[in-house]
Amino acid sequence: MDELLNELRQTWHQTIPVSEFMQISPQRFIDNELRVSAPIAPNINLHQTMFAGSIYTLMTLTGWGMVWLQQKLQNVDGDIVLADAHMRYLAPVALSPEARVAWQDADLSSLLKGKKAKVKLEVKLYCGDSCCAVFEGLYFSVPKM
Amino acid sequence: MDELLNELRQTWHQTIPVSEFMQISPQRFIDNELRVSAPIAPNINLHQTMFAGSIYTLMTLTGWGMVWLQQKLQNVDGDIVLADAHMRYLAPVALSPEARVAWQDADLSSLLKGKKAKVKLEVKLYCGDSCCAVFEGLYFSVPKM
Repeated sequence: MDELLNELRQTWHQTIPVSEFMQISPQRFIDNELRVSAPIAPNINLHQTMFAGSIYTLMTLTGWGMVWLQQKLQNVDGDIVLADAHMRYLAPVALSPEARVAWQDADLSSLLKGKKAKVKLEVKLYCGDSCCAVFEGLYFSVPKM
Repeated sequence: MDELLNELRQTWHQTIPVSEFMQISPQRFIDNELRVSAPIAPNINLHQTMFAGSIYTLMTLTGWGMVWLQQKLQNVDGDIVLADAHMRYLAPVALSPEARVAWQDADLSSLLKGKKAKVKLEVKLYCGDSCCAVFEGLYFSVPKM
């Protein structure tokens, strides 16, 4: 699993320059839960807390990373894109946060039949013990040609 | 107005490092409509189109910038934060896009009485003539202490 998380980080940093600038990094994947972090410094805003755009990007990639990991584990392939998202900011983020997402047992087998898969995920952002933001995203995975 | 747009760009780039990395830049403010652009290169994703996180950040800051401009024009002051957002991706963004937002005549006068103001804005992202994404954001402006 450490190798997969390493490959995920490299995929992000090598193909999405903003993710490297933000220093987004997968931390662990245990019990079907993925955790991803980013430091505050490159993601600061004018209130000296984490920028709303950075919070969203961290959470978007956490959900994307979960679909990517599940595709690897289930040995299916598809191009993963975000179609729709709802973001709620509950509290300012002053500490280095961690985004967490659990797999909801979505069905990826349609990819094997050449059809796109839909995955809805809820990602939560934690600062210490408190939940500072909630992201709901609808992802599509489209069969590769 | 050019001076105000210049001050807005400087405010972003000097206090939000991600906005400078993304090269987000206000373009014009005419007829109560603000337009903001960002080049594709620093905002690319692994599909060679604009990264979903960058699209959201560009649109979030466009809405934020509109509230900031209106506060300047109406001579009121407040700390502007995003509380809630809904993002819909309609088509891949392959060209340098422009985000556009019109002012909805929200009431900012509560700031003069020491109370927060609420502003709901719809921002649209255009690639040439076609609308590629729609962002709805609820912003609060909180009186400065």
